[in-house]
Amino acid sequence: MLSSPGGQPPPHFSGGVPRTPGRTVGELGEFGLIRELTSRITPTPAVRIGPGDDAAVVAAPDRRVVASTDLLVEGRHFRRDWSTAYDVGRKAAAQNLADIAAMGAAPTALLLGLVVPAELPATWPAELMDGLHDECRVAGAAVVGGDVVRGDTITVAITALGDLQGREPVTRTGARPGDVVAVTGWLGWSAAGYAVLARGFRSPRAFVEAHRRPEPPYHAGPAAAELGATAMTDVSDGLVADLGHIAEASKVRIDIRTAALDVPAQMSDIGQAVGVDPLRWVLTGGEDHAIVATFPPDAKLPARWRRVGEVLHPSASPQVTVDGAPWTAGGGWDHFGG
Amino acid sequence: MLSSPGGQPPPHFSGGVPRTPGRTVGELGEFGLIRELTSRITPTPAVRIGPGDDAAVVAAPDRRVVASTDLLVEGRHFRRDWSTAYDVGRKAAAQNLADIAAMGAAPTALLLGLVVPAELPATWPAELMDGLHDECRVAGAAVVGGDVVRGDTITVAITALGDLQGREPVTRTGARPGDVVAVTGWLGWSAAGYAVLARGFRSPRAFVEAHRRPEPPYHAGPAAAELGATAMTDVSDGLVADLGHIAEASKVRIDIRTAALDVPAQMSDIGQAVGVDPLRWVLTGGEDHAIVATFPPDAKLPARWRRVGEVLHPSASPQVTVDGAPWTAGGGWDHFGG
Repeated sequence: MLSSPGGQPPPHFSGGVPRTPGRTVGELGEFGLIRELTSRITPTPAVRIGPGDDAAVVAAPDRRVVASTDLLVEGRHFRRDWSTAYDVGRKAAAQNLADIAAMGAAPTALLLGLVVPAELPATWPAELMDGLHDECRVAGAAVVGGDVVRGDTITVAITALGDLQGREPVTRTGARPGDVVAVTGWLGWSAAGYAVLARGFRSPRAFVEAHRRPEPPYHAGPAAAELGATAMTDVSDGLVADLGHIAEASKVRIDIRTAALDVPAQMSDIGQAVGVDPLRWVLTGGEDHAIVATFPPDAKLPARWRRVGEVLHPSASPQVTVDGAPWTAGGGWDHFGG
Repeated sequence: MLSSPGGQPPPHFSGGVPRTPGRTVGELGEFGLIRELTSRITPTPAVRIGPGDDAAVVAAPDRRVVASTDLLVEGRHFRRDWSTAYDVGRKAAAQNLADIAAMGAAPTALLLGLVVPAELPATWPAELMDGLHDECRVAGAAVVGGDVVRGDTITVAITALGDLQGREPVTRTGARPGDVVAVTGWLGWSAAGYAVLARGFRSPRAFVEAHRRPEPPYHAGPAAAELGATAMTDVSDGLVADLGHIAEASKVRIDIRTAALDVPAQMSDIGQAVGVDPLRWVLTGGEDHAIVATFPPDAKLPARWRRVGEVLHPSASPQVTVDGAPWTAGGGWDHFGG
């Protein structure tokens, strides 16, 4: 666990300016790095015991805790020349906190496991922590602990916790024929931003930013649970793939109506420039962490939810169709196939 | 999160025999590997939702959850030629579950983040999971979820959760002058086993086994809390170093009496053979995950607790002394200094 051997927590240091310019992680040492990292976080009321002991203690008023873990490996999930450490932190936190929200829970806490090479500038993990901290703030959570070890490849392991606040968790298994499929948040923006970066460009900025720093609609998860969502997930592998997980778990078919999807003009422009149908980004791009859920047909959905399809009786595969037909342009993301 | 796209959990498969002999992780693919891993775990009553969704849901009857995270990197924390995947799993789980116990909590759940090279035989992560599962069983916990990604270096990121069962957490900050220091579990066995392995030997077996597979006294953490422990930690960095954390956090001095420590005859033999004072293993060896705690002087300690020192008023450093004098043979473990 992240634990500062000094006992008393160091004073909070805000801002991205490194306290130890020019030093590497190896020069700072394990305890120096831990002090640097813990100095950058502030607790929330849910944090009963934060970093500095064998384990953290976090409030779980619902008597159940929601927990999810994810890994990001340099070169595979992020590139230091494309994303700042701060952005990697925001993204790493976001993808885990979105998993919590997609169960209908409110995120409460985040733990960091960090592998860093000794020669890494100490500013990198410090700014990563700032990113984790700030994204936690957006979601209402706090960084409560972690572990740092030395290794050749920067690896960020995040575990997020959340509280159901008395609601039943919304899993992937409850979609029923007749339900509507609705989505809130961004779709395809990160993928379009990636396409831009991969070609060596840095603009349009909104899409590059969306790739660097997703903005999951955290509040929408608990809200969807309150609205009676029958199944829910966050879009991390792409809309077709993630609805495929719901369809398979719920033993139904799901049809997506492309006319209902939002393809912004600027995304179409990028698509034209790089020779990609932008609908592909919207249907198969992950990493925006939109939230997609199925609802009873009479559910009153707020304005920011967009009805994008319907749940049908099961049939032979494919379990997800697009405008009634199989989607053939490929989709989803197999971490071992890429 | 570890999620089998098949919806229904695959039948449990017990035993170490690989289901997919000769295949690599890359050949199995992400979803195949996830299926293989999730097939090897069984839930406990505390598991409300296990692997297969965006997040797990675990009972937290105390309304607080205890959480700790740790990383193991191949080549730094384990070697594949010294430890089987099963042993790495046992050890990775043990070191996290011991952190939970050392807060006075009962371990409930474990999440796995796993980085694996594509060319790794698929049996390796499968047997790792068997090890995690079996160690969780010993501690009363269950594997509830995780994430697997591809990378060059095997990295095992573990997060453990626990329940305080109505007890107040025992931190490192409560030791008071006059308290006794007591320890339960093994001390120095893993370090002696490491010394044996490092010289190319495989015996004495008991010590090699202790290095490969620690046996933390999980029950002793909650028991110590019930017995009125004022401060507690598990011995992961070595007795001197970990008591140093308590001394610093509690603003006291701690003196260890070496006459009270157990140096088994066989450990002395190894020491003689390799030219190391075995007391050094007992005082500075980590990884056995013994539990050390401070108690009021009148505490009635069960037979398996050994009184090994006392808490004194603070003085100039060092904060931990051995038989009243500074310990000079070096101690603890700085992950960036090694």
